[in-house]
Amino acid sequence: MATVAFIGLGVMGYPMAGHLKTKGGHDVRVYNRTAEKAKKWAEEFGGTACDTPAEAATGADFVFTCVGNDDDLRAVTLGPDGVLHGMKQGAILIDNTTASAEVARELAGACTEKGCGFLDAPVSGGQAGAENGALTVMVGGDEATFEKARPVIDAYARMVGLMGPTGSGQLTKMINQVCIAGLVQGLAEGIHFGKKAGLDIEKVIDVISKGAAGSWQMENRYKTMNAGKYDYGFAVDWMRKDLDIVLNEAKRNGATLPVTALVDQFYADVQAMGGKRWDTSSLLARLEK
Amino acid sequence: MATVAFIGLGVMGYPMAGHLKTKGGHDVRVYNRTAEKAKKWAEEFGGTACDTPAEAATGADFVFTCVGNDDDLRAVTLGPDGVLHGMKQGAILIDNTTASAEVARELAGACTEKGCGFLDAPVSGGQAGAENGALTVMVGGDEATFEKARPVIDAYARMVGLMGPTGSGQLTKMINQVCIAGLVQGLAEGIHFGKKAGLDIEKVIDVISKGAAGSWQMENRYKTMNAGKYDYGFAVDWMRKDLDIVLNEAKRNGATLPVTALVDQFYADVQAMGGKRWDTSSLLARLEK
Repeated sequence: MATVAFIGLGVMGYPMAGHLKTKGGHDVRVYNRTAEKAKKWAEEFGGTACDTPAEAATGADFVFTCVGNDDDLRAVTLGPDGVLHGMKQGAILIDNTTASAEVARELAGACTEKGCGFLDAPVSGGQAGAENGALTVMVGGDEATFEKARPVIDAYARMVGLMGPTGSGQLTKMINQVCIAGLVQGLAEGIHFGKKAGLDIEKVIDVISKGAAGSWQMENRYKTMNAGKYDYGFAVDWMRKDLDIVLNEAKRNGATLPVTALVDQFYADVQAMGGKRWDTSSLLARLEK
Repeated sequence: MATVAFIGLGVMGYPMAGHLKTKGGHDVRVYNRTAEKAKKWAEEFGGTACDTPAEAATGADFVFTCVGNDDDLRAVTLGPDGVLHGMKQGAILIDNTTASAEVARELAGACTEKGCGFLDAPVSGGQAGAENGALTVMVGGDEATFEKARPVIDAYARMVGLMGPTGSGQLTKMINQVCIAGLVQGLAEGIHFGKKAGLDIEKVIDVISKGAAGSWQMENRYKTMNAGKYDYGFAVDWMRKDLDIVLNEAKRNGATLPVTALVDQFYADVQAMGGKRWDTSSLLARLEK
């Protein structure tokens, strides 16, 4: 069993850190911007709540970060109280934030300088996946570092894949979000059209979901969409953050993403409708407004 | 066992008529615009090749049509030699063409006048589904007519659903195509981005296909897309015909379909690239041109 630090106890990080303690059996030291949450976590799971990221990272073999965006990530790693000031030589920093490939490369460089390892390791599977310890983890980094970290990551994962060198985990997560953007808009247009045509949407989905139009989103979201409920799953604000990362990376690598860019604008409409915290399937609400 | 007529022996109709004979055990009378194909079919399956749609329909209990578009459909049904001139009272016309809801209502009216039944019954599942007798059949019409026809339709179907009154089969098929349009473009953008980012696409799809980005299209088309092969499945020309029907119906029912309309224009680009007969996943070729 190892000593593990976990920075960022949000809806994802809180249960992920829990699995590292209960399933992994590790000694877990946590830090959270809102200190009460770290205290609550420590009471619930029996770990140590720390006052700074650096303090949490002190003595840890593995340091996990799961925060909001690139800037938050830089603050808790490279900042004055960041984990890099506490990490010992040979420790591995595993970043679960959905962030840019750029910041991943930046952190990998900073870790190398300190004699530490780095893996970018964004996750998918949502809050439910985090709570059930069944996340998909997309990892970028070198194989030796990956092999050392994998058994620890397993505590909260259903699938862990090494996708390539540093940044490849983030790039894989970006592809995931690109595929979802077009897919959810297509599904929203289909349901919208079906309602306008006066069809029984349940019946329609029952018939078409087994064929070439079928998708995870169709199976898992059509009922709430049809009922106009958008309070389940990943929020529009977070999707726009991810799509911003995607569209910036596309500028760098020269990819053309017309529908992804358009759907990002549609999500801006949803935000303007008051839907910042609605889930991503609220593209339907925009068509119905 | 019944006497059945089948009009239109294309890539779909040819095997479908075959299943009506071999699996259904019916007496099958066929007509095809290119007469040699009807002759070939009759030799292969042991049915009767007829010179006109009306002749094929004479004496039949069930008359199937599976042709190219609304105009072709009107010609083989309402035209001078159309099936309505041969059908006996009480016979049922089952149209497997993907056509407009408008022409479905038109044909239902004409059938009622003749004392015949009508079902619009477009299919999905592609050439493979037709050959394996495993199509999904989306039916519009009244329940009594549906119950009479269902055991006959079963010969080429894996799933048969009554979606609502006349036209509802066509409208359901339209929803299917709307969902596919956005979904395939999203998938194409994802693969395009992944290639530009230098990732191993097989590895990426292996990891993300089990989660929220997963779809039938991802599982069944990513390999050919990644290899730049677009010769498998439903052609761009046919997809544009279907999307034309969708966008016209949306004008009538007031649905807003921004990505469907955009993807239709993307398919126009693919046609201009020489891709009329490429399959629908060739949206990727457009991004890579």
